[in-house]
Amino acid sequence: MLLEAVYHRPKLNWAYAYDKETIHLRIRTKKNDLSHVYAWAGDKYAWDRTRELVPMRVMASDEMFDYWECNVKPPYRRLKYGFLLQKGSEKLWMTEYEFTPDMPTNPDRLFEIPYINPVDVYTPPAWVKDAVFYQIFPERFANGDTSNDPEGTLPWGGKPERDNFFGGDLQGVIDHLDHLTELGVNAIYFTPLFAATTNHKYDTEDYLKIDPQFGDAETLKKLVKLCHDRGIRILLDAVFNHSGGTFAPFLDVQEKGEASKYKDWFHVNSFPLEVKDGIPSYDAFSFEAHMPKLNTGHPEVKEYLLKVAEYWIKEVGIDGWRLDVANEVDQGFWREFRKVVKNVNPDAYILGEIWHESSPWLQGDQFDAVMNYPFTFAVTDFIVNGTLDAGGFASAIAVQLSRYPQQASEVAFNLIDSHDTARLLTLCDGNKDKLKLAAVSLFTYMGTPCIYYGDEIGMDGGPDPDCRKCMVWEPEQQDRELFAFYQRLIQIRKDHPALRTGTIKFLSAGKGETKLAYERRLGDETVIVMLNNDSTIQSIEVDVYENSWKDEFTGKVWNAERGKLSVRLPAYGFAILSAK
Amino acid sequence: MLLEAVYHRPKLNWAYAYDKETIHLRIRTKKNDLSHVYAWAGDKYAWDRTRELVPMRVMASDEMFDYWECNVKPPYRRLKYGFLLQKGSEKLWMTEYEFTPDMPTNPDRLFEIPYINPVDVYTPPAWVKDAVFYQIFPERFANGDTSNDPEGTLPWGGKPERDNFFGGDLQGVIDHLDHLTELGVNAIYFTPLFAATTNHKYDTEDYLKIDPQFGDAETLKKLVKLCHDRGIRILLDAVFNHSGGTFAPFLDVQEKGEASKYKDWFHVNSFPLEVKDGIPSYDAFSFEAHMPKLNTGHPEVKEYLLKVAEYWIKEVGIDGWRLDVANEVDQGFWREFRKVVKNVNPDAYILGEIWHESSPWLQGDQFDAVMNYPFTFAVTDFIVNGTLDAGGFASAIAVQLSRYPQQASEVAFNLIDSHDTARLLTLCDGNKDKLKLAAVSLFTYMGTPCIYYGDEIGMDGGPDPDCRKCMVWEPEQQDRELFAFYQRLIQIRKDHPALRTGTIKFLSAGKGETKLAYERRLGDETVIVMLNNDSTIQSIEVDVYENSWKDEFTGKVWNAERGKLSVRLPAYGFAILSAK
Repeated sequence: MLLEAVYHRPKLNWAYAYDKETIHLRIRTKKNDLSHVYAWAGDKYAWDRTRELVPMRVMASDEMFDYWECNVKPPYRRLKYGFLLQKGSEKLWMTEYEFTPDMPTNPDRLFEIPYINPVDVYTPPAWVKDAVFYQIFPERFANGDTSNDPEGTLPWGGKPERDNFFGGDLQGVIDHLDHLTELGVNAIYFTPLFAATTNHKYDTEDYLKIDPQFGDAETLKKLVKLCHDRGIRILLDAVFNHSGGTFAPFLDVQEKGEASKYKDWFHVNSFPLEVKDGIPSYDAFSFEAHMPKLNTGHPEVKEYLLKVAEYWIKEVGIDGWRLDVANEVDQGFWREFRKVVKNVNPDAYILGEIWHESSPWLQGDQFDAVMNYPFTFAVTDFIVNGTLDAGGFASAIAVQLSRYPQQASEVAFNLIDSHDTARLLTLCDGNKDKLKLAAVSLFTYMGTPCIYYGDEIGMDGGPDPDCRKCMVWEPEQQDRELFAFYQRLIQIRKDHPALRTGTIKFLSAGKGETKLAYERRLGDETVIVMLNNDSTIQSIEVDVYENSWKDEFTGKVWNAERGKLSVRLPAYGFAILSAK
Repeated sequence: MLLEAVYHRPKLNWAYAYDKETIHLRIRTKKNDLSHVYAWAGDKYAWDRTRELVPMRVMASDEMFDYWECNVKPPYRRLKYGFLLQKGSEKLWMTEYEFTPDMPTNPDRLFEIPYINPVDVYTPPAWVKDAVFYQIFPERFANGDTSNDPEGTLPWGGKPERDNFFGGDLQGVIDHLDHLTELGVNAIYFTPLFAATTNHKYDTEDYLKIDPQFGDAETLKKLVKLCHDRGIRILLDAVFNHSGGTFAPFLDVQEKGEASKYKDWFHVNSFPLEVKDGIPSYDAFSFEAHMPKLNTGHPEVKEYLLKVAEYWIKEVGIDGWRLDVANEVDQGFWREFRKVVKNVNPDAYILGEIWHESSPWLQGDQFDAVMNYPFTFAVTDFIVNGTLDAGGFASAIAVQLSRYPQQASEVAFNLIDSHDTARLLTLCDGNKDKLKLAAVSLFTYMGTPCIYYGDEIGMDGGPDPDCRKCMVWEPEQQDRELFAFYQRLIQIRKDHPALRTGTIKFLSAGKGETKLAYERRLGDETVIVMLNNDSTIQSIEVDVYENSWKDEFTGKVWNAERGKLSVRLPAYGFAILSAK
C-alpha cells in the first residue's frame, strides 16, 4: 500500500452530513492500489454495540487516486470512525493518529463527527436540481420599450463595443417569454439590473433602483410574476464586492476625503482618493478606479447590503442571488447574507462566482453553489482545445466531484460560456457538431445547466465585448435546427432523473482517446452518454447489464450482445442511450 | 518525486492569513524526497509585475512527510500561487489543476487567496501567548466559607466520591490567591460555577446564578477584581451543549410533554420523556438522562445562552469562556457566540473542549483555541506509557503543528492532566522525575500551559473521582521541592519569549531512542530543551552555532566544541539551555 497517497480529514468533502440522518465518508488512496476499503464506525458513547464495518465503493478515480465513499446513518447522530484498508491479504487500520495492523478496539483516537446538528447541515434548495437556467444580459436581449432607451442608443444588431447601448430592457424579456418556454428552460439568471453607468451594470450606482434603461421595480415585479406563472424562476446578480464610481457614498468620500462619514465604507489606503500609475489609492476590483471595493466588514455597509438582499426578494419575489466576485468579499458577510436571505425565502438559491477551488464557501454556512468553472475548463479542454484526452476529461471530472460534498455537486451551476468568455460556437471555430458535443456534456452532468442567451439559435462572438451581441429575433436568421436540438436536450434531461441527480461512472475514457462514455444511474434507471470527439467515425463498446438501449435523439435501438454494447458514432457524434 | 505524497489545498492550515498583511503557505511532500520547494506567487490582476519565487523551508517533519512553509506579503492583499518542486535537477510546477514541467506563465489556473479581508483574519487575543493557566475544580480547592456548605459536607481531605461534597468555594480561592501568585501563574480556569446539583456542576440548573455552595455573583466579582489586581485572568466553563436535569425548561418539558412551550429547546425524539434500557427518548450528553442536549439552533435557546455568555463578561468581568463538549454544539451557534463575546470584550479568550482534530473550529470564526489533547497524548505516550519513542514524539508534534494555522498553535491550551483524567503523578507511577520531564515538555512548548490544581505540590489520584481530591494546604504535606520546580519552570518560560512563541525544531529525536532535544528560536534568542526519558544516564549531542550554554535550572554552563554541544543527563533528567 502506498500510505503516502492515503488521505482523509474530517469535514469538507471527506466526512460530512448529507442530510439530518446521513453522513458521507470518503477516503483517497493511490489509484488501483487497494482491493477493499471499509469504514469502521460507531457511536462514541456506545461503541461496543454500534460499531460496524461499512464497505466503501470507488466513487471516482483521477489519474493518481481512487476516491472511496460510503454512507452511514448513525443511530444517535454521532460518529467515531476509522478505516480498514485492504490490498489482497494485507490489512491496515487507519485512525486519526496512525496506520496500525491492530483493529482499534476503543474509539478514543478515531476520527469524529461529533453530532449532526440539523442547523449545520448543508441544504441547498431542492428545486435547483431540476432547473435549467438561461442567462440574459439585459442590454442585449430585446428592446421592448424604446421610451427608456438611453441617449445615443444604436439600432438593434449593431457591433457591440465596451461602451455602446442597444436599448435592451425588461419589457423586451417579457415580450419574449414564449421563446424561453418553447425552449424549455425554467430559470433565468440576469446579469445586473440595478442603476449603473455602463452597459453591463457591474458598477452599481443605486442598489435599490432598477436601471431606468431597463424599466423600474414595477416592470421587474411584473416580469417575475409572469415568469413564476410559467414555472420560471429568477436569479439576480448581486455586485457586493465593489460599488460603481457613482455610488453616492463613494462620491462623498471622493469629495470630502477623510471628513466623509462614508470613509470607512471602502478600503482606503491613503487620502485623498487618487489614481497613480493606474493604481487607485483605495482597494478596487482589480485596479478599476470606477469599481471601489466595499468594506463589507463595516456594520453600516453590511446593514445596507443586507437590506438590499432582503428588499428584492420581499419586494419583487426573486428566487435567489448570483454573487459577483464572491470570493473577494469577506466570509463573515456571506454568513450573515445567507441568514437574511434564507429567512425571507428558505428556497432562495445562493450562487457564488468563484473560478477556483471553492470548498471554503460550500460547507452549508455560505453558498448553495458556485459557478462551476472547473467543469467549464474540463469540457473546453477536451472538446474545444483538445488539450485533454478522454482520460484527462474523466480525471478532471473526478477531481471536481471528489472535492465537494455531494449536495454541492447536485446544485452546481454548470456553464460553458457566458458574458465573460467567448461564445461556445466561436470557441468551436463554428463547428456546430462540436458545440453539440459540449452541450450534451453540459446537459448530462450533475448540477444545473445554463444556456447563455442566443447560443441556442447559433449566435457566435469572441471575447467581451463581442460575446455580448444583440439577440437575433428574425426566425430566418436563427438556427432553428440548433434550437430544436437544445429543446430536445432539455426534454431528455427532464425525462430522466438519472441525468439530473444520478451517480456518474465512466465506462470508456482511455488515455489518448477521443471517445468517451459514461453512465448516469439513479435507482433502477440508467442512461449512457457517448461522445465521439473526433473527425472520424468511431465505435464505442461498453459493458452493460441491460440488453436493449434506445438513442433518445434518433429513436434508434441498439442491442447489446453478451453484455457488450457497441455503438457506432459519426464524426463528432454522440448518443444518449436509455435502457428500454 | 512521489507526487502522490504532495498535498496542498487553499485555506485551513495550508494557505491562510496570519495577519492583515501576511499569508502563510504550506505544502506537504514525502519525507526527505525534495531538495527545494518554492511558492510561485503574485497578484492576480498584476501578475507580470508582482510574481516571484519565494523559497520555502521545512517547518516540521513527521514519519512520512515534510511540511514546507513560507510567508508572503502580497502588495494588494490578493494572491495567486502555485509551487515549484525540485529534487536535484528535476523540476515540476504544481497548479490547482496539475503537475507540469512548464512554468505557469499566467495565473488563471493557480491556487488563490482572493483577498485578505481584515474581519476574516483569525486573531486570538495576544495575552494568551504569555499566559500560564491554573485549573481549579472549585468544590475541592479550598473551603473559605463554611456557612455555604451543602448538607452532608464531609471533612476536608476525605475520599472523593462521585457524589460527595467537601465545601470548596470561591472564598476559598480568594483566601489562597497568594499561593497562585507565589507559584507564578497568571490565569485561572474554573470548572463550572453555576447552580447545579452535582459536585462537578456540569449539569447546570441556572446559568445566571453562581451555585450557592460556591458563593454568589458578588463573591465572584470580588474574586475577579482581586485576581485582575494581581494580573491573573479568569476563564469560566460554559456548559452549553446540555443543561442539567433540573434546568427549569427541561422540567417543564418533562412535566407537560408536547404541550410545553420549551419542547423545542431540546432534541426530543418521542414524547413523553422517558428512559428505556438506558437510552433517553431525547438526545443527551452521552446517554446521561440528567444532561439533556440543548437545541442550540433554536432562536430562544440561542438568545438565552448568548445572554449568559454576555452577562458574565459584563457583570463580573471574566476574561473568556472554556466551552464544554464544544464539538457537539452547532457551529452556527459558536459563530454567533464569538460575535457576542468579542463585542463585549475583544480580548476574551474562547477555548473549546475538543479532543480530536479541530481545524473546522479554528478558522477565525469560532474558537481562539482548543484544549490540546493531541499534545497530551504525545507527552503521555512518550514519557508515561512508553508507546512512542523520541522519533514518534517529534512526529506527533509535527502532525499537530502542521494541522493548524500558526495562530492556533500559539494559543493552544496545553495540558497533561485535568479533572477528566488521572493525575500526572499517578500516571507516572509516583515517579516525580518523570512528572518533571512531562512538565518541562509542557512549559517549553508553543501554546499556553495549564497546571491542574495540586499537581504543583505533589498530589496524586487515579481517574475520576480520585483525581478530584481536596487540595492539600498543610505545608508539611505539600511537596515544596516540586512547588519550587514549577515556580522555576514558570519563571524560565516568562524569561524566554522563545519558549512561548518561538519556532520549534527537533535536534535529536531518533527512532527507538528515549532521549530528545529540541530548539525553540525567536529572533536572536535560542533555547534548547533536552529530555532523557530513561532510567540510565544518557548524553545528548546536538549541532549548535553558539558556544556557551547555560542550564536554566542548575546554572551550570556547557560549552560546545566545534559546533557540537554534548550534555550528560541523569536518569529521567532534563536541561533547559539558553545561549549565553
